[in-house]
Amino acid sequence: MNNLPHSAVAPTRRVQAVRTASAAVLGATGYTGQELVGLLGRHPHFQLVAATSESETGQRVPGTSLKYSAAGELDLGTADVVFCCLPHGESGEWARRAAQAGAVAIDLSSDLRAADSGAVYGLPELWRSELEAARLIANPGCYPTGVLLGLAPAVAGGLVDRTRPIMIDAASGVTGAGRSAKRELLFGEVSEDYKAYGVGNQHRHVPEMRQGLGRLGATPPQFVFTPHLLPVRRGILETMYVPLTQMLSAAAAVRMWSDFYVNEPFVEVQPAGLPSLRTAVGRNVVALGFSDIADLESPTLLVVAALDNLIKGAAGQALQNANIALGFEERLGLPL
Amino acid sequence: MNNLPHSAVAPTRRVQAVRTASAAVLGATGYTGQELVGLLGRHPHFQLVAATSESETGQRVPGTSLKYSAAGELDLGTADVVFCCLPHGESGEWARRAAQAGAVAIDLSSDLRAADSGAVYGLPELWRSELEAARLIANPGCYPTGVLLGLAPAVAGGLVDRTRPIMIDAASGVTGAGRSAKRELLFGEVSEDYKAYGVGNQHRHVPEMRQGLGRLGATPPQFVFTPHLLPVRRGILETMYVPLTQMLSAAAAVRMWSDFYVNEPFVEVQPAGLPSLRTAVGRNVVALGFSDIADLESPTLLVVAALDNLIKGAAGQALQNANIALGFEERLGLPL
Amino acid sequence: MNNLPHSAVAPTRRVQAVRTASAAVLGATGYTGQELVGLLGRHPHFQLVAATSESETGQRVPGTSLKYSAAGELDLGTADVVFCCLPHGESGEWARRAAQAGAVAIDLSSDLRAADSGAVYGLPELWRSELEAARLIANPGCYPTGVLLGLAPAVAGGLVDRTRPIMIDAASGVTGAGRSAKRELLFGEVSEDYKAYGVGNQHRHVPEMRQGLGRLGATPPQFVFTPHLLPVRRGILETMYVPLTQMLSAAAAVRMWSDFYVNEPFVEVQPAGLPSLRTAVGRNVVALGFSDIADLESPTLLVVAALDNLIKGAAGQALQNANIALGFEERLGLPL
Amino acid sequence: MNNLPHSAVAPTRRVQAVRTASAAVLGATGYTGQELVGLLGRHPHFQLVAATSESETGQRVPGTSLKYSAAGELDLGTADVVFCCLPHGESGEWARRAAQAGAVAIDLSSDLRAADSGAVYGLPELWRSELEAARLIANPGCYPTGVLLGLAPAVAGGLVDRTRPIMIDAASGVTGAGRSAKRELLFGEVSEDYKAYGVGNQHRHVPEMRQGLGRLGATPPQFVFTPHLLPVRRGILETMYVPLTQMLSAAAAVRMWSDFYVNEPFVEVQPAGLPSLRTAVGRNVVALGFSDIADLESPTLLVVAALDNLIKGAAGQALQNANIALGFEERLGLPL
Repeated sequence: MNNLPHSAVAPTRRVQAVRTASAAVLGATGYTGQELVGLLGRHPHFQLVAATSESETGQRVPGTSLKYSAAGELDLGTADVVFCCLPHGESGEWARRAAQAGAVAIDLSSDLRAADSGAVYGLPELWRSELEAARLIANPGCYPTGVLLGLAPAVAGGLVDRTRPIMIDAASGVTGAGRSAKRELLFGEVSEDYKAYGVGNQHRHVPEMRQGLGRLGATPPQFVFTPHLLPVRRGILETMYVPLTQMLSAAAAVRMWSDFYVNEPFVEVQPAGLPSLRTAVGRNVVALGFSDIADLESPTLLVVAALDNLIKGAAGQALQNANIALGFEERLGLPL
Repeated sequence: MNNLPHSAVAPTRRVQAVRTASAAVLGATGYTGQELVGLLGRHPHFQLVAATSESETGQRVPGTSLKYSAAGELDLGTADVVFCCLPHGESGEWARRAAQAGAVAIDLSSDLRAADSGAVYGLPELWRSELEAARLIANPGCYPTGVLLGLAPAVAGGLVDRTRPIMIDAASGVTGAGRSAKRELLFGEVSEDYKAYGVGNQHRHVPEMRQGLGRLGATPPQFVFTPHLLPVRRGILETMYVPLTQMLSAAAAVRMWSDFYVNEPFVEVQPAGLPSLRTAVGRNVVALGFSDIADLESPTLLVVAALDNLIKGAAGQALQNANIALGFEERLGLPL
Repeated sequence: MNNLPHSAVAPTRRVQAVRTASAAVLGATGYTGQELVGLLGRHPHFQLVAATSESETGQRVPGTSLKYSAAGELDLGTADVVFCCLPHGESGEWARRAAQAGAVAIDLSSDLRAADSGAVYGLPELWRSELEAARLIANPGCYPTGVLLGLAPAVAGGLVDRTRPIMIDAASGVTGAGRSAKRELLFGEVSEDYKAYGVGNQHRHVPEMRQGLGRLGATPPQFVFTPHLLPVRRGILETMYVPLTQMLSAAAAVRMWSDFYVNEPFVEVQPAGLPSLRTAVGRNVVALGFSDIADLESPTLLVVAALDNLIKGAAGQALQNANIALGFEERLGLPL
Repeated sequence: MNNLPHSAVAPTRRVQAVRTASAAVLGATGYTGQELVGLLGRHPHFQLVAATSESETGQRVPGTSLKYSAAGELDLGTADVVFCCLPHGESGEWARRAAQAGAVAIDLSSDLRAADSGAVYGLPELWRSELEAARLIANPGCYPTGVLLGLAPAVAGGLVDRTRPIMIDAASGVTGAGRSAKRELLFGEVSEDYKAYGVGNQHRHVPEMRQGLGRLGATPPQFVFTPHLLPVRRGILETMYVPLTQMLSAAAAVRMWSDFYVNEPFVEVQPAGLPSLRTAVGRNVVALGFSDIADLESPTLLVVAALDNLIKGAAGQALQNANIALGFEERLGLPL
């Protein structure tokens, strides 16, 4: 098996320091920011010291004794870690400033995910070692998290037939689109509907997937990515049709993926069957399942990934990255 | 263009006779049966004379002056057309009896869809001429209706690359699974979830699709069909990744599909964009849209089909077939 | 029985003229406007000649050959009837202008519902005769339509105990709140939630209810109105606890209400049981049901009203009013 | 203030013993049983030793290393506490057997809630002291939990006007109706609907409410209880119209209820505004809010209670009762 990422072999984890770290959340009233505030409140070692919101400045942060402040009033150097949950195009700049001010800065937007951004791409299961000394971390997108973890063993193992594209058919709950008031996200529009969007490899996450797949194998595979909007609040399901150079049964895939992720608490390889949204919602995991396909000449594996877009796809993964970067035990405060 | 089905060129329709035909619905309290009762009530020439239900025998049929009877008490020869909406494994036999008793019998189950069943497969847009003298009609499945109408121009035109499978990723509302009390269809289970089922080409509709695609082209294409259960009441969306022997732009596909279906009122080829569930729900149509795919070496076309599983996918199509078989204008009583 | 409204005794309807009337819809892309455009398209005598939208000017009106125009460009005198579906505070003024330009103007906002506005309050089942010569009609609110029709027989009959307030607990689908982009109406907010709003008789519709109840009886009853937001698209259910001066069984109430509405096609008094949203959604009706209450000393009747907020609660009732004002048969084009 | 329950004045709690107690859940695959298994898994001192299911015997209990057993095979004496989540009519008998076998038995059905059943009624905020030595506990119904906690200060304080009934208009998510396969609970039936059921004081919980209200005041108030089925998974909202002997402003009610529940972590009196489902879902609380009512002659207070039917309305409250009966700190393992 070539191109096996180092971190998948033997993840090293530092001993947990019994101390408290301070955390700030910028953009704390969006869905991702709310989730982070909730997770931090249940973390044994992080203490939330600031939460910003331009629209709700001065109001109480639920479950805390804090009030929302304006981002501009914040002294970024006072927190050990700063989570930036601001809109794309704005968030990355705040993360840079926070890192310069001395904090570990984790940007949950797409601003810093390109390899040339200077930030470390925070997908621990594939590239954990880079995170241990990181000061500026780009938290992965929700869709790429499932795609990269779902495909890594096949791509790194050189099993993918490059002459045929991988088809990635994905569906996401509405919180993936943020909490801004837009007509197309009204209950009256989304309910009882289902539709594709950003089709034809036009979605913001496609370059991020391409870059990640390229890091995993010598020749990155072709793929088509089609996201759909689901009438549910949270959760992503990615149904992936993977062309292989030779037949691989679902049972063999379970063994291979299980070996690849043997030490990973946040990747769940199902021994049988396929995950659904419910398998993963509320938990910091990517759940993976496989199926054989009857009566097909061209070797193809069906891989299904499920994750909670707000947890393993955003806030949970950000906290996982913070745990690593600050030297805490990686699983602390993360719902399993 | 080879293998072009005859009926797609010049559909012939008989002059509408101004008369009334009597109709019976067997299994009238399931979702499909209810829909048929409603459609028949708004049809200018059909009169519902009997509706059966084992569980609600003796109760009033909503919107009518009839009461549900037991199927066993029905004289099948008294109706001009008998719609059989009974469970798979039972419905086809009733349809055979109704045809023998002299009625036009339309079976909405999967019992008679195999070519050797002796029934006519009722997909008018592709094989209309066979329906005009039919006495025993197998109404197509909901998923195959969208797949066959969505793919027919490409398959009949010989454009599909047989070395790569077509990937058909489909999602259906819960009424597609019927109205029997099953735990997995409870609101508490379906709501806020999304999952694949019948994967790996194991779904009941796969042989029906294979048979239909085989009738359209010299060499039927490979395909993978993956249905998912959506938390909506009705509607099917089918996202199809079609491997082509040469590049075909979305704009060219719009022209080609529009030409193919130029005389078809119930196939809507969108000039741009993709249909969603809402495009088709409540109407007797299959809506089709196309997308180009950026940065792909292997020529591939994205085709999306949307339909209402209870109308064009079941009751509406059955009524369309009845219109044809009884010599009524094909569009009568069908919501557009 | 005192104070019985005249129109409830013997509704007079003019002979239907076989002619076509032209209609314009101002604000045609909101939920109410969309519904009206759909209903007009299926009406045998109305022809839609203009539909306005500020946000979609120039785009095609679905199901028609028209394009949306800007309201300011419209010659209001060219239509026989003008439906104003614009925002509260703006819509009534447009209706006045349309009436002055010679059209029958029907305002669907709350602007003209006060008795001193100069408009006729368009609730045909209670005050039909006023509508027959009306040029400026205030279409009732969705909640008051169910409340007034549900309570009229008791109030007009002098049965309500004035010393105890009527409790009106109501629930509405989200389309009742309009189609403007507001955070609190996002799918991510509304789904899996349920809450009261506008409580304590603060809702916009309370004065309208009070005025209507006052017209029905010598001494208007006290009442408390509490609306709730339901995670459904459309439909209103109003559960009303009516204090009576003497016991009235549910069976007696069915008879009394049935007599009161004996000639009304759009009020459905259920012989038994209670209506649910589904009873009424998609139809131009208010469905009413009653229940006895066990073990209660104070005579109280439970009255439940269900209606479709966009049809009998808005667009359907507006079309019913237009039918009356223009001399068409009242039921034309209205789904039953 | 007369009739003030003793436990509301000064709840006594025993010092937490640092030890582990074993727990068994009978009926562990229903919604309530699943919730209990999940809560027990996060409790610091309880260890799940058995979980029964007749339908899934032999399968793995999610999140544990146990397998479901059949209830009949269980030695009831081996667990310190036995939670009975079986169907009404069956569950209470199992609880009696478990208590006789030496366990603390908590029955979550309605079987043992009548005062003459011999079981202790487990609503700690009102009658905590009885629970401390209890061996057989009847866990309250979901609706009565909100009603009794919402009304207790008014009833115990003698503020309710007995000549007018309290109107209790309630709405519940579908998990309140259990996980048995019933047609009326299918997604296709519940979605986009809303309806009353068990009206006219016929619901199973009415006697339980009457008994509880009777324990709180010298003369129990009249009331009408009307439950509705909501298209959501979980949560109860109860909108209560409380007739008072004299005016009480919402602000005064906030003070009075806050004083009454000053030491209660699981009753949240909102300083302003009203709770919605979301306020309480996922947490072991009853959230309470109040509103004034404009333009009303008869003094009436609007009280709204929200709770999670599966947590404070069932599994959470059962665990709270177990904490008390076994001498653990009452809040342990309960989500706030």
